[in-house]
Amino acid sequence: MVGNTNADSSGKLQQLREILAEVTDLNRAAMVLEWDQETYMPPGGVQGRAEQLSTLLRLSHVKFTSDEVGRLLDDLEDELASAPFDSDEASIVRVTRRDYDQARKLPPDLVAEIARAGSVAQPVWRKAREDADFASFAPYLEKNVELNRRIADALGYKDRPYDALLDRSEPGMTSKELAGIFAQLKDAIVPLVAGIARHADAIDDSALHRGFDPDLQVAYALDVVKHLGYDLERGRQDISTHPFSTGFGPGDVRITTRVSRDFFNECLFGSIHESGHAMYNQGMAREIDRTPLWDGASPGVHESQSRLWENLVGRSRAFWRHFYPSLRSVFPDPLRGVEEEDFYRAVNKSHPTYIRVEADEVTYNLHVLLRFELENELLEGKLKVKDLPEAWNSRFKSYLGLDVPNDRDGALQDIHWSFVSFGIFPGYTIGNLVSAQLMEKIRLDIPDLDAQIERGQFANLLGWLRKNVHRHGRKFTPNELLERATGKPLTAAPWIAYVQQKFGALYSLEAARAG
Amino acid sequence: MVGNTNADSSGKLQQLREILAEVTDLNRAAMVLEWDQETYMPPGGVQGRAEQLSTLLRLSHVKFTSDEVGRLLDDLEDELASAPFDSDEASIVRVTRRDYDQARKLPPDLVAEIARAGSVAQPVWRKAREDADFASFAPYLEKNVELNRRIADALGYKDRPYDALLDRSEPGMTSKELAGIFAQLKDAIVPLVAGIARHADAIDDSALHRGFDPDLQVAYALDVVKHLGYDLERGRQDISTHPFSTGFGPGDVRITTRVSRDFFNECLFGSIHESGHAMYNQGMAREIDRTPLWDGASPGVHESQSRLWENLVGRSRAFWRHFYPSLRSVFPDPLRGVEEEDFYRAVNKSHPTYIRVEADEVTYNLHVLLRFELENELLEGKLKVKDLPEAWNSRFKSYLGLDVPNDRDGALQDIHWSFVSFGIFPGYTIGNLVSAQLMEKIRLDIPDLDAQIERGQFANLLGWLRKNVHRHGRKFTPNELLERATGKPLTAAPWIAYVQQKFGALYSLEAARAG
Repeated sequence: MVGNTNADSSGKLQQLREILAEVTDLNRAAMVLEWDQETYMPPGGVQGRAEQLSTLLRLSHVKFTSDEVGRLLDDLEDELASAPFDSDEASIVRVTRRDYDQARKLPPDLVAEIARAGSVAQPVWRKAREDADFASFAPYLEKNVELNRRIADALGYKDRPYDALLDRSEPGMTSKELAGIFAQLKDAIVPLVAGIARHADAIDDSALHRGFDPDLQVAYALDVVKHLGYDLERGRQDISTHPFSTGFGPGDVRITTRVSRDFFNECLFGSIHESGHAMYNQGMAREIDRTPLWDGASPGVHESQSRLWENLVGRSRAFWRHFYPSLRSVFPDPLRGVEEEDFYRAVNKSHPTYIRVEADEVTYNLHVLLRFELENELLEGKLKVKDLPEAWNSRFKSYLGLDVPNDRDGALQDIHWSFVSFGIFPGYTIGNLVSAQLMEKIRLDIPDLDAQIERGQFANLLGWLRKNVHRHGRKFTPNELLERATGKPLTAAPWIAYVQQKFGALYSLEAARAG
Repeated sequence: MVGNTNADSSGKLQQLREILAEVTDLNRAAMVLEWDQETYMPPGGVQGRAEQLSTLLRLSHVKFTSDEVGRLLDDLEDELASAPFDSDEASIVRVTRRDYDQARKLPPDLVAEIARAGSVAQPVWRKAREDADFASFAPYLEKNVELNRRIADALGYKDRPYDALLDRSEPGMTSKELAGIFAQLKDAIVPLVAGIARHADAIDDSALHRGFDPDLQVAYALDVVKHLGYDLERGRQDISTHPFSTGFGPGDVRITTRVSRDFFNECLFGSIHESGHAMYNQGMAREIDRTPLWDGASPGVHESQSRLWENLVGRSRAFWRHFYPSLRSVFPDPLRGVEEEDFYRAVNKSHPTYIRVEADEVTYNLHVLLRFELENELLEGKLKVKDLPEAWNSRFKSYLGLDVPNDRDGALQDIHWSFVSFGIFPGYTIGNLVSAQLMEKIRLDIPDLDAQIERGQFANLLGWLRKNVHRHGRKFTPNELLERATGKPLTAAPWIAYVQQKFGALYSLEAARAG
């Protein structure tokens, strides 16, 4: 590249990049196959698809964890010792090293055992959830806890075993840091939830359930995300049971959505959420394509982008000032008599639910806190698997004020615990917090943001995110990225201020907050 | 498997099968990516997709042509010397050996040169065709002829260089055998075409151009192919510019179609054609899955399945006796006043066209003959590239009676010559002939076939094809398969009898044939 001061005199960076490109291509091919599986694959394709995916991912793993990659990294760490921290070359070597060491630390036997355990446990979990029968799933969860402990031991940790798992997905984050943040969140949210419960009638969201033509919903959602900045020359939207976003490279980042005639939020907010993920990938620098840098800084940071667009933009008054007239013209019947302010209030109605994935902005983090605590305690042996449902239910009552009626709506609800992956849930809360922390800084840099949104102008907002977040990909850890973008590491304060202000106003809670 | 007498005592067959399974998975992943590219991929995905495909196909090639595969084949040829010819194990070794030797005979440099030449020549060909400017493409075609010669030299041949190329796609076929068959075809078709030309007014096909709702066409076509036996639990239909069928394994074999409001034939007959290919793949034995046997015996035999369903079934009077009432109820307006017999005649109208892919049943093989002759002569240096347009046009006039107006409608029409693949075209004619040869035998085995078709019953026909053709995959060469199924190697007689009888009747040509 012109202007690249670190000439690759030994040719080793080029060698490394060629291997990484091949690994990336294999992984992306697998992602295309997974996208197809969720969107168009006929039922008969299941077995063959599993075989194809297994082959692709095995070849990619073998290639990436080869001794050759280790030797190249050793040499390049010397060669590039004086390259700037944020240069592409230094970052590629640094991040590849992190991934490489983590991958090599897991013995192949353990990796194979994890894969087997997951494929055995998943159907058992599905049946157990259906039957609300925790006991039948318990032995598999015990195995899972043991495997998670062995992963933590293999990766190593200073303080708590959870740190090893957390560091895998959210590099640099620790249990201690998160525990402090969750304590602040609990202090702020629990009374807010209680206050909202006392004023539950303040918002009527019945209009959202009045029947919206599905095809029109999907088309409207696509129009909206296109307007926000999701580039359809390099993307597309399809339907799937569970919405997701997936990126096969800078030129092809797709979203899916789902649609319900009887609940408006599902399609539009689902599409906006996924387009937030997708715009992140579409904004990554082409120079880091086909390297481990071409991805989100972490699942949590990725979630911050989806949440920012879904909630801080899509559920704002300014957003609906712009979009409500067009929405109403597309759906005149269900929205008859529903004014803009009514609609804004309806899409923001907050009420505790048993199910995490149906939770609203206010309550979501309490669901995560619960899992963060339980995973830690299971991992450290302080909680036995057999006692999990009771622990779940009593804590759920104290955080969200609801009596869990059965384990289907309680400890059996998430697929995660059936396939070995403790340490994932905190990313959802990190996403919420990061979105508010970024937005606080964005409002300083773009003082008339709300006015721009009211006019349907999103280019400055997207430009800010591209410059400060998207283009870097995985170059920085979440906290490095936040320090660069906002001057601080992760903090809960902006998010707490945001929900207290917004929901205090929506539910007229001034008195409740003072109490 | 129970009853498998050749126990794999050395474990080498299992080793070979594991490598072949991995190679198959890589190739199938590439096919999924290609399917996606033709159906849903956004425009921005082109570059990334090319990289992914190149990586997958390179890894598959390296794995398949490894010395290890050669050693396993050597050992297994000894071990399985007494295994029955048609057993799975002997066939896997035999067919893998053929593929392996052909792949190893091509020097890697030549393979790379071919890939480069193709990617350079294709855009040039596209532009040249658009401009009807043969001269600008001529140097690339000269290069292509040279590369085809080098392929033939590397593979080796007894008689003519074309034999080497032909044997790659149609194993066991020779130029000599084909030249004899084409001579018979020419003798039969040229006078038939002339006879039809004199009675062109006998068929009015204007009803096919009256405007058919595209969505209804696509849905109707899907209903029809489902009824024929295409299993949608293991398949699906999408839209693409050029219809194709692709099989990712026994559980997932897809078709695409295209649709024109102004020409009925495109969608329905396109879908039936592709479902013929797809039913072939869906009928292959699961025991040979993930081996080189799980594919058509040759492109020609594959084409026989699509042509049999498209033409011998789909363009038969019995077929329309069953389907015309439902078609008419779906499209009452364009089919007003069009009786069943009119419609049957319309879809069978024959008239010479410049373009091969638009050719009808009668004239199609003349287009192939032309290319077979020209490829042979180019390869042997008897025809210079610069003289190709003149040779094309004069022969076209004598075979089809038309003056080619420009090279876009003449020597520049096919993409094939831009990416190095002489020896492919004869497969289309082999497909036509095999379909008629099989059908002659089917009519002996299922004497009331027409009555079954009139009742919309296709299970016996499909069952016959499954038993005699589909389940074997690539176990047998085209002639081996035909001998087993019909008692004879490839012969043109059944096809000639079929078109003479059918089109003689449609155009009242008794006198013309005698003449």
